Amino acid sequence: MEFRPVLMIIGALTATLGVAMFLPAIADAAVGNPDWIVFVASGLFTALAGAGAWAASSGGARQLSTRQAFMLTALVWIVLSAFGSLPLFWSGLGLSFTDAVFESVSGLTTTGATIMTELESAPPGLLLWRGLLQWFGGLGIVVMAIAVLPMLQVGGMQMFRAEAFETPDKILPRAAQIAGGMTAIYVGLTAACAAFYWGAGMSLFDAIVHSMTTLATGGYSTRNGSIESYHSTAIDYIAVAFMILGSLPFLLYLRLLRGQVWSLLRDSQVKTFLSLIAVTSAIIVGVQVGGGFHTGEEAVRHALFSVTSVMTGTGYATIDYGAWGPLSVTVFFIITFFGGCAGSTSCGIKTFRLQVLYIDLRHHIQQILFPSGVFVRRYNRRPLPETVSASVMSFVFIYLLAFFVLALALSLTGLDTTTALSGAATAISNVGPGLGEIIGPTGTFQPLSDISKWLLAAGMILGRLELFTVLVLFMPRFWRG
Amino acid sequence: MEFRPVLMIIGALTATLGVAMFLPAIADAAVGNPDWIVFVASGLFTALAGAGAWAASSGGARQLSTRQAFMLTALVWIVLSAFGSLPLFWSGLGLSFTDAVFESVSGLTTTGATIMTELESAPPGLLLWRGLLQWFGGLGIVVMAIAVLPMLQVGGMQMFRAEAFETPDKILPRAAQIAGGMTAIYVGLTAACAAFYWGAGMSLFDAIVHSMTTLATGGYSTRNGSIESYHSTAIDYIAVAFMILGSLPFLLYLRLLRGQVWSLLRDSQVKTFLSLIAVTSAIIVGVQVGGGFHTGEEAVRHALFSVTSVMTGTGYATIDYGAWGPLSVTVFFIITFFGGCAGSTSCGIKTFRLQVLYIDLRHHIQQILFPSGVFVRRYNRRPLPETVSASVMSFVFIYLLAFFVLALALSLTGLDTTTALSGAATAISNVGPGLGEIIGPTGTFQPLSDISKWLLAAGMILGRLELFTVLVLFMPRFWRG
Repeated sequence: MEFRPVLMIIGALTATLGVAMFLPAIADAAVGNPDWIVFVASGLFTALAGAGAWAASSGGARQLSTRQAFMLTALVWIVLSAFGSLPLFWSGLGLSFTDAVFESVSGLTTTGATIMTELESAPPGLLLWRGLLQWFGGLGIVVMAIAVLPMLQVGGMQMFRAEAFETPDKILPRAAQIAGGMTAIYVGLTAACAAFYWGAGMSLFDAIVHSMTTLATGGYSTRNGSIESYHSTAIDYIAVAFMILGSLPFLLYLRLLRGQVWSLLRDSQVKTFLSLIAVTSAIIVGVQVGGGFHTGEEAVRHALFSVTSVMTGTGYATIDYGAWGPLSVTVFFIITFFGGCAGSTSCGIKTFRLQVLYIDLRHHIQQILFPSGVFVRRYNRRPLPETVSASVMSFVFIYLLAFFVLALALSLTGLDTTTALSGAATAISNVGPGLGEIIGPTGTFQPLSDISKWLLAAGMILGRLELFTVLVLFMPRFWRG
Repeated sequence: MEFRPVLMIIGALTATLGVAMFLPAIADAAVGNPDWIVFVASGLFTALAGAGAWAASSGGARQLSTRQAFMLTALVWIVLSAFGSLPLFWSGLGLSFTDAVFESVSGLTTTGATIMTELESAPPGLLLWRGLLQWFGGLGIVVMAIAVLPMLQVGGMQMFRAEAFETPDKILPRAAQIAGGMTAIYVGLTAACAAFYWGAGMSLFDAIVHSMTTLATGGYSTRNGSIESYHSTAIDYIAVAFMILGSLPFLLYLRLLRGQVWSLLRDSQVKTFLSLIAVTSAIIVGVQVGGGFHTGEEAVRHALFSVTSVMTGTGYATIDYGAWGPLSVTVFFIITFFGGCAGSTSCGIKTFRLQVLYIDLRHHIQQILFPSGVFVRRYNRRPLPETVSASVMSFVFIYLLAFFVLALALSLTGLDTTTALSGAATAISNVGPGLGEIIGPTGTFQPLSDISKWLLAAGMILGRLELFTVLVLFMPRFWRG
């Protein structure tokens, strides 16, 4: 296999990440924190390493084969996570190597699980860097989901191929064109979110960092108490709105800009996603009111915020929903797997796969009942191909299997059942907090053992890359062919 | 829909159940227990009700449509469970109505979860009746799996249609012919098992009852301490052997009798099932030795017994494997879902479905890697049809969904997470004991609330009927047709 095109792209992205490290350097320098030098050093090192790789490998083919695309997607998250951890490792906080990598992986995969326990006293450079990691990760996911995954026929994403840009079927020029359009929309939405947060009373710095982690459905915050600590109804609702905007298919925003105002709300995936949020929130309102925890607007707000935060995989916490009893715990555990729409920054199984599963199961029951009947399965007003169903079913199985294996491995490290199960779910689904006292919405991942942290980081990357993209690399055939 | 053929068969089976109640009457009369009159009364009532229904509905069509077959399978387990609970309810033990129904459903579905806490002091009639319920249930399942399910195209069972008897495709004459052959084999195996148990030191009564619940992979015992309380290495291994024999495809025994000695061991499902038992037992041996719980032959025996008991869905307990740490708990939780081979008395997802899932997932990854490649999926040396894959995937999804819904409902009744999760798994998979202090291998289901018991009983019937057989009845289309 030709590695040069893969190395070239990874080099270019690494160099970009290195340049971005100068932003936290500025933030630290502005408040006189000595860590600015750490960011400058990390930035120079990363930018030079990236530029070197780029220069050494340029001049090769300007397009990618399927196998190169698989290599690229898997490698790029690992390499960028490694470089992204440098400023965390070298900073004055004294993070261990494991913790620095965990935090960097959790950032770039937009998971948002953190090992940092004292955010209020952390220097601004570090807080900004965590936000930037998530922001870049979110953008990377959108581009990957729209430009790369449909070509690789992974997990039913081929269904979205026809809808995408009218570009040549070559992965690289396609990805470049898509990346341009998506970046503009992403920057615009982030700026709008920051403006709203600022207007609602956040400091400008907090507004910028939170806007980046909201749109990326990442969940890193600048405060231990997360969004809750602002005690602002307006900020809660702004977060809900922009977490949802980050979880809708970004391609539909392009249509919106082209004047097709209703295309977004007519989309079957969007409608189902919003319905799932509404129905689940209604259940959680019922739990709060029934259990005497909260009533009225407060119950609605807590429900909407927590449900949106977990279902989209953002992972901000307003409140400890674990305290609302077993129904609440079970509901939040289940929606951990759901995720938002395909082609957004969100993660998890994703709404369209839940829809395809439902369509297939209903179809199957009809077929059992009327073996000779002919039933057409349709999705979003178009026939649903058999191959998409098979892809989706395989995806969900591997997803659940990966969850079980990770939960098993975590329980072997000595974690209790609740922490192991919810930790595995929250890592694979890139949500952030788990359940229980240790990693629940009021805890952090700091107390876990190093081996648990590495397992969780591996789970985050596996989940973020939609599993198959990584798994094919482990097939002997991949390397022979 | 014509109900007469359905009612006629249910009537005949109910009458048979009623006649069978005279056996425990004899057992109780022999030791002078006044409950013999309860069994006579229940037997007369049940036999007369069944004969009446049979007489009232005979003379109708002598064959079943698909819809009638669905009605029959769902109704027969419910009706027989209701009649089977009568002697339990009326007995001198003072069982509540809920407890009597729970025990009867758990018996007929060969689950083996019990609400009885004092087996040693229970009258022999009752102990025999619990064994008979499981024995009839086991036979009913074999006939259903071979004669009915393949025709209904449920959960991939259509794959076994070609292999079965060369009979006309009509369900009723087919079922009658199959039932005859299977009953002979079933009686023979049970007698052999009883002889071995007796020879190894059990009393004749205990040997008979345990042979019935072993072959049925049911798990009811005559002692609180189950098989463990005999402290006999020989009895442990006899139980392992006959639990496995109860979990192999009964059709292959017919081939064995016809002289095709190797057909059993060449069968892909049988080989995989035995490998799963071997590999899982090896892990559990490692857990015991590594944790310093047991060594040598004792560790092997405990592992083989517990793994076979849980994987086949029998549910005898020798020992509290929950005490062997988190890996042990996780492994036993996972194999709760596995089950034995299709066409046996065992339950759960079943080995061939696990194989089809594996074949499909491997095929899917190959297809992702080589989109234009042609890969033939084969099962048991024959091509695997697409429709079987789709059926199997749908089945496993509905299975996991039913498990989640039941676990959620149980947690709402106030059960802790371990009891709710393992209770749902053990009911849907018809295994018997769950995990944890209440319903674990050393506990019983007695302390649960009535609502939990009804939920679990419903889960047992749903799981035993392979889900779809029940679910189609809830489709409006079923009743319109």
